[in-house]
Order: sequence, then C-alpha cells, then structure tokens
Amino acid sequence: MPDFSIGVDLGGTNLRIAAVSGEGDLLEKITLPTKLVLGRDHVIKEMCDAIQHLSVKCTGSGKFFGVGIGVPGLMDVQTGVVRKAANLPGWENYPVRAEIGRRLGLQKNKAQVILDNDARVAALGEQWLGAARGVENMAILTLGTGIGGGIVLGGKIWHGMNGMAGEFGHVTIEPEGPACGCGNRGCAEQYASAGAIVRMAREAIARGEAPGLAQAAASDAEFGAKAICDLAMAGDEHGQRIFGSVGRALGILLADVVNVLNLEMFVIGGGVASAWDAFAPSMLAELRERSVVYAETAPDDPLGRQFLVKEEDAQVESEDRKQGKTIITRALLGSDAGLYGAARMPVLTG
Amino acid sequence: MPDFSIGVDLGGTNLRIAAVSGEGDLLEKITLPTKLVLGRDHVIKEMCDAIQHLSVKCTGSGKFFGVGIGVPGLMDVQTGVVRKAANLPGWENYPVRAEIGRRLGLQKNKAQVILDNDARVAALGEQWLGAARGVENMAILTLGTGIGGGIVLGGKIWHGMNGMAGEFGHVTIEPEGPACGCGNRGCAEQYASAGAIVRMAREAIARGEAPGLAQAAASDAEFGAKAICDLAMAGDEHGQRIFGSVGRALGILLADVVNVLNLEMFVIGGGVASAWDAFAPSMLAELRERSVVYAETAPDDPLGRQFLVKEEDAQVESEDRKQGKTIITRALLGSDAGLYGAARMPVLTG
Repeated sequence: MPDFSIGVDLGGTNLRIAAVSGEGDLLEKITLPTKLVLGRDHVIKEMCDAIQHLSVKCTGSGKFFGVGIGVPGLMDVQTGVVRKAANLPGWENYPVRAEIGRRLGLQKNKAQVILDNDARVAALGEQWLGAARGVENMAILTLGTGIGGGIVLGGKIWHGMNGMAGEFGHVTIEPEGPACGCGNRGCAEQYASAGAIVRMAREAIARGEAPGLAQAAASDAEFGAKAICDLAMAGDEHGQRIFGSVGRALGILLADVVNVLNLEMFVIGGGVASAWDAFAPSMLAELRERSVVYAETAPDDPLGRQFLVKEEDAQVESEDRKQGKTIITRALLGSDAGLYGAARMPVLTG
Repeated sequence: MPDFSIGVDLGGTNLRIAAVSGEGDLLEKITLPTKLVLGRDHVIKEMCDAIQHLSVKCTGSGKFFGVGIGVPGLMDVQTGVVRKAANLPGWENYPVRAEIGRRLGLQKNKAQVILDNDARVAALGEQWLGAARGVENMAILTLGTGIGGGIVLGGKIWHGMNGMAGEFGHVTIEPEGPACGCGNRGCAEQYASAGAIVRMAREAIARGEAPGLAQAAASDAEFGAKAICDLAMAGDEHGQRIFGSVGRALGILLADVVNVLNLEMFVIGGGVASAWDAFAPSMLAELRERSVVYAETAPDDPLGRQFLVKEEDAQVESEDRKQGKTIITRALLGSDAGLYGAARMPVLTG
C-alpha cells in the first residue's frame, strides 16, 4: 500500500470515510447514515470504528499521515473544539479532536487528527484534485441550504485569526435586504442559496405573480431549488427572474471578493451550482460591470466553456491562467471535494 | 552607518525621499515639490538625484538594501511598469523601474528597486512601525480623495495575482448607489472618501436642508471634508448626519472584509481618519451588527481608547490580541507610513 491518509466528511445526512493515497487516489470508501438522533457519542464511535477499519486495512509499507475531518460548523482549528454547529446538536464546545484521538489511540503512533469547517475543506479538495488543480490561490463558494466559503492561499486553507475566514455567505449585498440568521441584513445567503431561491419563489407565488411556480409547488411535495431551476431552464419567466436575482447577487459578491483578493480562480460549488446555466450569464455580466479588477483580467469568453471538463477547454484555461486572467468556474468534485480535502489536510501538515 | 534602504513616497503634491535604517530609524529625509507639469522625466530625474545623494551620504559599513517607491496608481509589481495612474499623466505603461535602475546604475552593485501602489506600501509601513506593529496579518483603509487599501499577510504585502488586491474602495455598499469612476455603482468610495463627504454636503446644501453647511461653504473658499468634520464635531446636525453615513458605509465595508479575511487588525488611515471621533461610533456599531465574525471577536470597549498612543492602551490592546480579538484602529504614522513602508520593501526581499 502507498502512503495514505483518511478523510472524513461529516454531513447531516451521510458520514463518509475514505482512505486516499498521497497522490489523490481513492483506496477505499465507507458511507454510513449519520445517526444524529442517537447522539454525538454514537456518531463519533461509528466514525472511529470506520477510521480504524480503513487504517488497518490500508497500512502497509507506506506512511499513514493521519485523519482529516470536515465538520459543518465553525471549528477552533488549533484546539479541535467545535465552536458553532447549528446542525450538530450537542457538539458545540465539545473537544471532538481530543476524543477522536483518544478513541483511535493515535497519540501513540504520532499520526494526527485535523478538523476543519466543511466548506474550507471542500476548497482544499477542489484545489488539490478538482477545478482548481494546480492553482495556488483560490476561493470556493458553496451554494447549498446556506452559502459556505473557503479560501486557499499558497496551497493551504486560509483560516484567519480565529478560523472564521471565508464567510462569503454573509457579505452584504443589500444593506436593507432580508434579515439573516447571522444578525446582518441582505447577506448573499439571502439571495443565492437554495433556501433563498425557495423563499423568493414562495414570495412570488404569494403575490399571485408566478402561475408556473404555483402549479409546481402545489403538485410537487418536494418543491425546491432544483424544481425551480428546471422551470427556469424550461422557459418559465418567474423562475428565470429568480435565477437572474441569484446571478446578480453572486456577481455583486464576486466583484467584492475579486476586488479585495485578486485571486487566480473562484470556484462555485454546492447543489445550486448545478443550475449554473440559469444564473451564470447574469452573474458574469454583473461581475464584469462592477469589478474593476475583473474587467481588467476577464477571459475573452468566460461563459463558453466548462473548464477542465473537456480537453480543449483545459488548454484554453491554461492559456488564460498564464496570462493572469481571473477564472470563475464550477466545482468539479461535487460532494467528494470535502472527502478529498479532508484527506489532504494531514498530508499538508505531516 | 547601519544597514539601510531608501524609501520614496511619490505623491501628487510632494516627492519625499528618506534613508531609513534596517531597524526603522529615519537617517535623513528630503522633501521636494512634485513638479508633474514639467513632465515624467523631470520628476524621475529629481527623484534619482535625491536617491543618489542619500545613498552616497549613508553608505558606510552597513548594507544598502535598495530603493522602494510608493506610486499613486496600479503597478505591475513584477515588471515595474505603471498600469494605471490617473494623477500621473504620461506614466501609464512606462517602465519606471527599469528607467530608475538605469539612471542609478543599480544593476552594478545589485541593490534593487521595488515599486508598489502607495496604499499597499502604507499598509506595510503601519505594520512595520505604526498601529499594527508586530501584527502579521492586517489591512489598511486609506480614506483620502478616494479610498485606497492594502493587505499584509504574514508580514508581506498581499498583491493577488495581478498586483490589484486590496481595492476596498470599490467594494459595493449600495448596489444602486451613485456611479463610481471604476464602472460600479455605490462603491465604498462614494460614501466614505473626502470626495464623497464634500459631494454629500453639496447635495444637502442644494436641497436647502443644511444651513450651517451652506454658510460655511459660502464663506470658506477651501470648504472641504475637514471643514465639514469641524462643523459636525461642533454639533451641526447635517454635518453629523454626513459622518453618520460615512461610519455606516465603513461599517458595512469592514463587516464584509472581516467576514472574508478574519484578520487580526484593520487600520484606518488617510486624511478623513482625522475625523475618527465623528464617524467611528456609527462605524463600530454597524460593524458589530453586521459581521458575525466581528460580533464573536470584538474587544469589550473598541472605542474607548487609541491603541498604542498611551502606554496603558497598548497594554489593553496587547491583552485583546492575545485573546484573538479583532482590532479596528487609527493609523499612527500619517503620511510617513508610505515612506517607511517603501523603505521596508527592499529589506523584506533583500
């Protein structure tokens, strides 16, 4: 067996554990349901059993770098304590890393356990093996129920002073916009997350403005961002208007972040990113209009290709990058970004 | 003589050249008027004569690190070419560094010439010897005619891919706000620069709303941001309202940047910063309301002291920093920040 590490993606629905070689090859993967209702200790025990199983199975002539874990919440990366985790009841202020280290007996063989926020970890995954492969300085926006974010500088996660950098979802778009759970108003999350898309659709339905959406909502028990995107792509005017708003908000957000950081690449991931065709045109137009830095560095045809998906696109992108162009593109790894990024963490510090 | 470098602050009004020791002691300073009307070559010649004079005078047993120059425009730091400089007619796309190196004959003794944007250079100055002394990761907002910005990460200027990072002045505050010269609408620069303050005052006067401001404008040929600040501090309601808007815009801007970067310190400099007492209360209140990261990391009493000005304040600040608090404070070095920061650049790379 080669050198390897173990990555864990602790999601609200699934707990995924993978052994990954130092070169980024998947050696073995375990997927379990995350049984949050059985309590924190149960989840940690199942996680540790799976880690143990994989580490025994993969141990051979190669080095074991350790375990990286992506957590849906704010982590104190130094101490390995979960600071805030709305979707993990009972985990806040719990010394997760110490407990996992104890259960795995890892102190003995010096392999390490590293925990970090799931969006930051996904940034690292896309930077290592996905859309931003070979890009030293990049950021990711993860458009899910909320909006997560992560920044990679010099090939490493940029944590900021308290491990809280990359909160793109709470950048202000409209100072007097809808109230956000974070305390601010008009955050990006209120315009471009799956939650926001459904809210905007329900508001349009309530105003009696959107018959197509109303019909879909009445007939589809699981009416959500995906259904609204399908309607927009099929030509529904109100669905298109909603995704136009999503694109506008993302364009304003990206303009701010491009102006501040002037990074090589910005990757858009998460479930809503699958509606790329519905929001990307307005996003890129808004970005170009609003960011002087992007206007100076935009590729000639930012929309006309899916970077790295096709061979010829990869070549165009590589040319653009040599010329110092700012690339805005879709994530490539889907939910595996978190798994690979998690596995990458102990390699970087090992 | 000790090890030293030469810093140049190329301003629209003054050209200042200083020899500074590696420890940050000012050895000698020359201030000249910047005779832009006599053309680029004249200014470069005067600059080079002064650099030559100081380098000969200070050369002794110590090492000469080279020359750093802060330029009011967008620089290509790699090539030493000025990309955009609205206030330096004839300088755009001119290879300034090569020309200065040629005139100084610096290739021969291997000392180097480094040019960078003036706001980025000021960030480095404040980080080396000013308000952010000893702070590895910080940013500066320079509130002048426009708004400049600079980011220091790990003790070095963060340039971004094309040397354009730190454009805080063009972060969007109100998406449908006043048009900005950069192409965007509602940029921070349209609410919190000296230019914006005067514009807001003239708008209020034109609406017949602000008798105190109208009287001052009529009687003062040099009616400007300073006069409006004086009126606000003396209790004029409309002057206070304008600085309330300044504070609100800065609070929104800082909330965005704190959420994205989670840096240890944000320094406010430039001429408008001298109106600190007029805008800081609304700025800090807005910031706390809008940034979840700041709310988690704010010092107990962010307004009640001027950091590092008094001994006891320095102690409080040092305690706050140990506890991972986010410090928002005033610049300390004034226009010398650019001079010291410029002198610092060749030391860091030398």
